[in-house]
Amino acid sequence: MAFSRSISVSFFIFILFAVLINPAISSRVSSFIKLPVTVHESRSSSVASYCESWRLSVETNNAGSWKVVPSKCVSSLETYYNRGQFDKDYNVVANYALAFAKTIKIGGDGKDAWVFDIDETLLSNLEYYKANGYGSVPYNSKTFNEWVVQGTAPGFDASLKLFNGLKKLGFTIILLTGRDEAQRSITEKNLLDAGYSGWEHLLLRGDEDQGKAAAQYKSEQRSRMVKKGFKLHGNTGDQWSDLQGFAVADRSFKVPNPMYFIA
Amino acid sequence: MAFSRSISVSFFIFILFAVLINPAISSRVSSFIKLPVTVHESRSSSVASYCESWRLSVETNNAGSWKVVPSKCVSSLETYYNRGQFDKDYNVVANYALAFAKTIKIGGDGKDAWVFDIDETLLSNLEYYKANGYGSVPYNSKTFNEWVVQGTAPGFDASLKLFNGLKKLGFTIILLTGRDEAQRSITEKNLLDAGYSGWEHLLLRGDEDQGKAAAQYKSEQRSRMVKKGFKLHGNTGDQWSDLQGFAVADRSFKVPNPMYFIA
Repeated sequence: MAFSRSISVSFFIFILFAVLINPAISSRVSSFIKLPVTVHESRSSSVASYCESWRLSVETNNAGSWKVVPSKCVSSLETYYNRGQFDKDYNVVANYALAFAKTIKIGGDGKDAWVFDIDETLLSNLEYYKANGYGSVPYNSKTFNEWVVQGTAPGFDASLKLFNGLKKLGFTIILLTGRDEAQRSITEKNLLDAGYSGWEHLLLRGDEDQGKAAAQYKSEQRSRMVKKGFKLHGNTGDQWSDLQGFAVADRSFKVPNPMYFIA
Repeated sequence: MAFSRSISVSFFIFILFAVLINPAISSRVSSFIKLPVTVHESRSSSVASYCESWRLSVETNNAGSWKVVPSKCVSSLETYYNRGQFDKDYNVVANYALAFAKTIKIGGDGKDAWVFDIDETLLSNLEYYKANGYGSVPYNSKTFNEWVVQGTAPGFDASLKLFNGLKKLGFTIILLTGRDEAQRSITEKNLLDAGYSGWEHLLLRGDEDQGKAAAQYKSEQRSRMVKKGFKLHGNTGDQWSDLQGFAVADRSFKVPNPMYFIA
């Protein structure tokens, strides 16, 4: 009798604990009694979901012009970079670009060209942006240029693979950046240190390009290359303004960058 | 003594069950003893991650022309639609489109226009695609047209909101679809049943448009509208071929569709 009563008591304790420690059951219980933690979990999942939609809108250019990453999406971006999804996304783009490149018949006259942007396309400034709220604070040209002249930006695994793959296929590489002429030598050094070599042109903003919108400046530069006889088969950039306008390449490849927007 | 022994026995049973029914603990146990399920989970997580990159490549047009959804990504697409991320993605695009529309000064002459594609933009064929492998099997014009003539495709919440919002702002609505003239009346009926009304033009493929690539056909139709005096402020479509080419709108909005590609 004492034994069976003790079984009943401990069975009750067992059930109580089992319910409390089982997330599936306890979440049903807590949603019923509306504990604050449930509200919090549901809000963060809804924020993550919004931030995923926001990032897709940015990458597809639906967002249009935007100034800073919404502050509620900073932790989503942190996760995006830290857990490797960014690298995987870039890698898939690089594979599509290489697959396309392999379909091109290279003429042998050195005129079959591929255009690359530099920042966030060949060189990663993630370290700078990590220290500056992942793009959630307004762009600061002073601190960014201080970072650039250090010349320590690493390459991306995917861009190195693509760059070297294109060279091997016989493409002439044209680098086209919004950086100033004054940053030519540090940019060259940084690119070499990051593992890039053998580009044919490195086009930077001259005095006459100051103040031009990126899409205008880059279209003009591509147009000059076309006039020199280059066939622009491919173009790789992290901004739509790297890719659109006139004298566009046959295929453009938008690599992911949810941290900033350049018009 | 009997009581305390019974406590010990039932406590042991309690601990055993608590561990077995608690997913957090049991997953730690299984990763420690390396059960096959752990390997399987890791592979499916890597597939999900690839499929996310693939979907981004499709939405950004990096994938170029593609025929079917990779079979390993079917379950990712199922999740994408069933758990509501697709709806959220579309909703964010619709909000960006409406925000842009509100910046336009409407002239009052009825010439401020917005272009909409129909399939997967205003009407959802998800029910058809669910029954046909979410785009993982090649396009079958016969069965798809059988579905279309049923005229039962629903609208999207986000597209209804955008469509009605634009009408309220005073935009003239132009519908431009790859569907044939022969499907005009069923398309009109389906659109009305789905809640759309008050469009000014419904442009379908005539005899002279047969065999034209979508981007060419749609550019020609938009060009005709521009010649009629319409200002194409916005264009909404699920395919890049709805949006690119010539006579493009001031702003184009790519709504998500990872199920099929139209050149």
